[in-house]
Amino acid sequence: MQIDVISCVSEARSDDFVGKTALVIDVLRATSNMVTGLSAGCRAFVPVETVQQAKQIHAAGDLLGGERSCNKIPGFHLGNSPLEYTRDAVDGKRIVMTTTNGTRAVQKSQKAQHVLACSLLNARACAKAALDLGRDIIVVCAGTQDQFALEDGLGAGAVVKEIRGLAKTEPQVNDFGIAMESCFLQFGDMLQETLQQTATGKRLAKLGYSNDVGFCSRLNIFELVPVLKEGVLVPLVPAPTYR
Amino acid sequence: MQIDVISCVSEARSDDFVGKTALVIDVLRATSNMVTGLSAGCRAFVPVETVQQAKQIHAAGDLLGGERSCNKIPGFHLGNSPLEYTRDAVDGKRIVMTTTNGTRAVQKSQKAQHVLACSLLNARACAKAALDLGRDIIVVCAGTQDQFALEDGLGAGAVVKEIRGLAKTEPQVNDFGIAMESCFLQFGDMLQETLQQTATGKRLAKLGYSNDVGFCSRLNIFELVPVLKEGVLVPLVPAPTYR
Repeated sequence: MQIDVISCVSEARSDDFVGKTALVIDVLRATSNMVTGLSAGCRAFVPVETVQQAKQIHAAGDLLGGERSCNKIPGFHLGNSPLEYTRDAVDGKRIVMTTTNGTRAVQKSQKAQHVLACSLLNARACAKAALDLGRDIIVVCAGTQDQFALEDGLGAGAVVKEIRGLAKTEPQVNDFGIAMESCFLQFGDMLQETLQQTATGKRLAKLGYSNDVGFCSRLNIFELVPVLKEGVLVPLVPAPTYR
Repeated sequence: MQIDVISCVSEARSDDFVGKTALVIDVLRATSNMVTGLSAGCRAFVPVETVQQAKQIHAAGDLLGGERSCNKIPGFHLGNSPLEYTRDAVDGKRIVMTTTNGTRAVQKSQKAQHVLACSLLNARACAKAALDLGRDIIVVCAGTQDQFALEDGLGAGAVVKEIRGLAKTEPQVNDFGIAMESCFLQFGDMLQETLQQTATGKRLAKLGYSNDVGFCSRLNIFELVPVLKEGVLVPLVPAPTYR
């Protein structure tokens, strides 16, 4: 099995996804929100690129979520803070979501056979799911404004480490994946402090979202894996196991 | 002082270099060759992009050096192996050089105020020189075929670590630089084994260049820093210190 980690969504080429399982990572904060929202009972996330698309697509009862320049979009129900995606707010709802980097990374991955939304919060669950799907894996760090973001690299490193621990045969990992795995091994026991020192972590703190950084730096607290089905992210339901 | 590390030459934007000191890193093998050759008494390296340019530019007494697909170019005097750049072979000579990634990275950096050729072999010397030059620093990992190469990332990590140790005030380092520094801290005491496991390391071993990988994985064995002067790489002569 081959695992290729891509440093930034702008580095990803659509054709590299064909036939593979893609793990999209935007730790601060889009994919952290998706797993948090779906774990809190939200039915689905509909990722769209523009604010206008979000307004056009959303139907009665849907919620509008997302950000521009880290802040809630005027007229939207929810911003891009996982702390907003509580059961009270999202249970049973469909959320139409647009964020600067995360939703773009999901869109870019659509030629993959499977697209999973991964974060530190559900890294191990994503590793298991990707292994079960049995295909080569491409891990896309969303990044920020076409630059590598360390928090996404740490998420990728966490996934590579988990896959290596779970796989029956040693996976082949590209150079960037080896680098990110070593970063995770270096920083894995101080994720919160490290995320606070990243470019995005500092920007979020300045804007008053420090608690989001703390929330998103927790490792493997969710078993849920969001998967893209017909353009919409829903919980991955594992195939039933017959005993 | 700001230090930005760029993952791959194709990621570098010419305008990002303006006013800065650029450190170009192609550990396997172009910048390792340059420091080795200049340390062995070669007068200068003339980096050019194409084989034809190399043939046109070289004058009587010059040597032609470089590679395509890792191998020596037909009709050239030298390949891309630092073990060929001995005093017997290069002393007093000018070498016109073309390689796939390294010379391209030097060309791409030309808008910088200063361009230094950096490798593991002279990482500390480059860190000192860059600090002395007193400008913001951009470190360009050359990469291989538009992909990140771990050996270049380790070179960048070594430089960031050295600068952090030498600088009087804490430098600001971009996310990618922090990641590479942590990689270096992880792998720094097993550089040879790590370089053998990289994509380029494996390819070179298959082609019979394992000894080059061993040679290029040695840390801080040279004090010499190649600097670009009027399009040609020559030894950096530090300004005299008056006591």
